[in-house]
Amino acid sequence: MSTSAEQPTINQPLFDQLRDAIRAESPVALATVIEGEFTGAKLIVQPDAQSSGTLGNADLDRVVTRDARGELAAGRSGIRHYGLHGEAREGAVSVFIESFAPPPKMLIFGAVDFTAALARVAKVLGYRVTVCDARAVFATETRFPMADEVVVEWPNRLLDEVGSELGERDAICILTHDAKFDVPAVVSALATNVGYIGVMGSRRTHDDRTKRLIEAGVDEGGLARLRSPIGLDIGARTPEETAVSITSEIIARRTGRDAKSLTVTEGPIHG
Amino acid sequence: MSTSAEQPTINQPLFDQLRDAIRAESPVALATVIEGEFTGAKLIVQPDAQSSGTLGNADLDRVVTRDARGELAAGRSGIRHYGLHGEAREGAVSVFIESFAPPPKMLIFGAVDFTAALARVAKVLGYRVTVCDARAVFATETRFPMADEVVVEWPNRLLDEVGSELGERDAICILTHDAKFDVPAVVSALATNVGYIGVMGSRRTHDDRTKRLIEAGVDEGGLARLRSPIGLDIGARTPEETAVSITSEIIARRTGRDAKSLTVTEGPIHG
Repeated sequence: MSTSAEQPTINQPLFDQLRDAIRAESPVALATVIEGEFTGAKLIVQPDAQSSGTLGNADLDRVVTRDARGELAAGRSGIRHYGLHGEAREGAVSVFIESFAPPPKMLIFGAVDFTAALARVAKVLGYRVTVCDARAVFATETRFPMADEVVVEWPNRLLDEVGSELGERDAICILTHDAKFDVPAVVSALATNVGYIGVMGSRRTHDDRTKRLIEAGVDEGGLARLRSPIGLDIGARTPEETAVSITSEIIARRTGRDAKSLTVTEGPIHG
Repeated sequence: MSTSAEQPTINQPLFDQLRDAIRAESPVALATVIEGEFTGAKLIVQPDAQSSGTLGNADLDRVVTRDARGELAAGRSGIRHYGLHGEAREGAVSVFIESFAPPPKMLIFGAVDFTAALARVAKVLGYRVTVCDARAVFATETRFPMADEVVVEWPNRLLDEVGSELGERDAICILTHDAKFDVPAVVSALATNVGYIGVMGSRRTHDDRTKRLIEAGVDEGGLARLRSPIGLDIGARTPEETAVSITSEIIARRTGRDAKSLTVTEGPIHG
């Protein structure tokens, strides 16, 4: 590991911080200038702490901190290109952002027509995707080759097993359309710390399901955690459009945006 | 082609209608029950006309008409599964929806970091994707293997060539971030009948660009056609999240929805 003459002492503490975060299993990203005036300059980015180090310009640091948090949230590493002050265009500075975080998880319950499209868009977004359905004839790897895992199991039983591993970055999408599967799946999902729970269905299915969930003991706080009917109101018709509607909602909920068009809102695009 | 005993006379006029629509280059979809009680039953669906034929149940006809219009808008064919009355779950009836329409086109101007992610999500949605940038070093098939076409050309010159082919179902996304490219690209895009024109940039870039567009002679009607800054306000950070934000907006604009979460709106999910 080489250190440039201009910054002989800065890297050791940075790497200590990186090592400590990784050991603590706390998400952390390392941004390194790989092309540009300050090649080798480094910035350590964590979700909820101020960044350490510098890439040589305060504006660039600010933009890369924002982008690195996005990459980190998706558990992804890659090269991004910026102007000298962080402008979003090709050119002056190339930065390698390395994320030290497992990818976020998406569990999709229900091996239905919408499942494959949702799994495809979720993979573009960097999710580790599990498809789960109790019906062995539908839950097959042949039908869902894009999924990381296809599990034949009742949703609530799978959640009994893996639910404790789910956190704020993860998502559960319940596409089963069937109260027999939906209600126990929702109850089990609410017992986890998962960041997003979406449940598919028409308005009527939603109303009927809500009654059954209340009968099953789900309280107002639990109902308020559900996105039901699932997705943003964009008029999606095909499974692929519905997948975009669902993933948009996951992003909007995570960032706290109200999901109107940027065209009719004000303020900075990136929060 | 076999006709079942129950419907000996219905198919000939249906196929006449299908043939006429195809000859007229008018989008049309043919829905056929391939598994279920009325195997072989057919429905002809067009974007703006009442459907002809029947799949054996009026509710099923209504749901399949809606879905077939979605498939047709994306220029896609495929098998969908329904309950006997069109319920959105696996089972009783399998319907092959065959679209006779070219896929919608998306032209992406600017071979930047956001381009590959947008092209990937657009491909999931069924678009024929063209990436165009005047800079030969950036506009390469190696960088954009998911695109159907990578063109080294000034955006306005490409639009002079292909702009007249663009219609309501097509989209132009201008990601160049550079007034030198943006302004002539927007002016050329506004001269087409394309259904969606989105232009990327910060609030500041947008304001600056708006001034330049007015100087270039774009009137209020033209400015109102632009989605700028591009995308739904979901707080997208990564290129992949931005791609979801853009495609959500394209869908929402086409369907006239206001893109709030379905959770906080009322009325049927499908219009």
